[in-house]
Amino acid sequence: MPLTITRFAPEDLSSTEVSKSLTTDSLSASYKLEYFDVSSVGAVPRDILSFGNAQWEDLVVTNWPAEVKSPFGLFPVLHIKTADGREIRLTESFVIEHFLAKQFGLLGDNEWEELQIKTFHSSSLYLRERLTIRVTWNYKEVQEKALEAFLSKDLPLWIKTHTKHLKDNGSNGHYVGNKTSLADLQTANVIDHLKCLYKGDAIVQQIQQGSPEIWKVKETVDKEPRLQKWRQSDGYKTHIAFSQARYANTGI
Amino acid sequence: MPLTITRFAPEDLSSTEVSKSLTTDSLSASYKLEYFDVSSVGAVPRDILSFGNAQWEDLVVTNWPAEVKSPFGLFPVLHIKTADGREIRLTESFVIEHFLAKQFGLLGDNEWEELQIKTFHSSSLYLRERLTIRVTWNYKEVQEKALEAFLSKDLPLWIKTHTKHLKDNGSNGHYVGNKTSLADLQTANVIDHLKCLYKGDAIVQQIQQGSPEIWKVKETVDKEPRLQKWRQSDGYKTHIAFSQARYANTGI
Repeated sequence: MPLTITRFAPEDLSSTEVSKSLTTDSLSASYKLEYFDVSSVGAVPRDILSFGNAQWEDLVVTNWPAEVKSPFGLFPVLHIKTADGREIRLTESFVIEHFLAKQFGLLGDNEWEELQIKTFHSSSLYLRERLTIRVTWNYKEVQEKALEAFLSKDLPLWIKTHTKHLKDNGSNGHYVGNKTSLADLQTANVIDHLKCLYKGDAIVQQIQQGSPEIWKVKETVDKEPRLQKWRQSDGYKTHIAFSQARYANTGI
Repeated sequence: MPLTITRFAPEDLSSTEVSKSLTTDSLSASYKLEYFDVSSVGAVPRDILSFGNAQWEDLVVTNWPAEVKSPFGLFPVLHIKTADGREIRLTESFVIEHFLAKQFGLLGDNEWEELQIKTFHSSSLYLRERLTIRVTWNYKEVQEKALEAFLSKDLPLWIKTHTKHLKDNGSNGHYVGNKTSLADLQTANVIDHLKCLYKGDAIVQQIQQGSPEIWKVKETVDKEPRLQKWRQSDGYKTHIAFSQARYANTGI
């Protein structure tokens, strides 16, 4: 893989200068979210940018793996053009999603709400990652039993514990407080991801039947007015269609 | 698994009250880090608590899986007793490690340093997770080829990209700026973890020979004066010994 390891920020800027540029008005900045032409790991950052009504471009990775330009050789990469014209890159899902969620008001109203939101976000993100590594891109000869183990152990534990905490918050379609947060977006997008997988309908049915509380989060996100423009766009629909095609036959 | 799903905070407290309790002087709070009797995912939070000279207890999970008490049925769990006597729980590695790193000055000196530190931390943490799911706890019949793929693809990419960014920071034994951060602790502990695995010596040798820059981070952390008391304790040594025993023969 011919790789250009890109920098996170221009070499001649001090970290104080970059910090200052980054914390300037987020609505005057513009963003490019660079990822493959599927939903998966790109779905949540795209939803946050859409939710925040940001100036952003949905940049699809081309020419991969013939030519890769990225700080870690991986995607997604978030390209930020700050209000004062500086070009900064972020990578790693947790970093990109926490950063964007902070910029666009998806981390609650105080320190404790933020910690709880990040906790549920992490739990749902990791459910997808565990499934992706353990099942989706595992060796074909063990995929079937790995999926069985996921469906009989990991998924029920996630459903059971998330349901309990959602009930503690009043079963109102939100993990924390009374409004849409990064946690809600993550869980809704994980369910969308599961749906694209082999036996996806059965997996999603297990969630829907097992937890009206989790399902309410999914429905509340899907109805979120600030997501509609993006979700009805050709770009979004193409990612979903390509995900379905990509994940229909996986394994290595 | 008989599971008690514990709450994150007492039911009768508002999120504003919990926030206030949590942001009170961190040195007057006390902590229990509950995890299994191995290094692995517990190693970094234990190092941070030690680095910060916190009042903390190394709480080993007992009676697992006969009885499990945890917010997600998983460990580690960080139990916090705040300066004003409130009992709060955190879980999920990213949340625990970001929180503790913030409390004890391991996230740099400004916004951009913090973002970069969290980026390198995430990359190294995920290297360990990918290896754990893909190789350590994969099915025995595919472990050998999964390990080969890790050693020929994932590990070299991590070494190459981290080395470049460490050179950009002056090859000074730190990822960001001129002092120990969460990123440094994560990478050093991942190398310690790798060493305990099957063929671990060869893996570690690949890092040491491939990157004097990464190795310098490891040596700098190992010499960090604020870690010595913990690292020389029986508790620490037991975790290392148990890790070596636990990871000598893995797979399912």
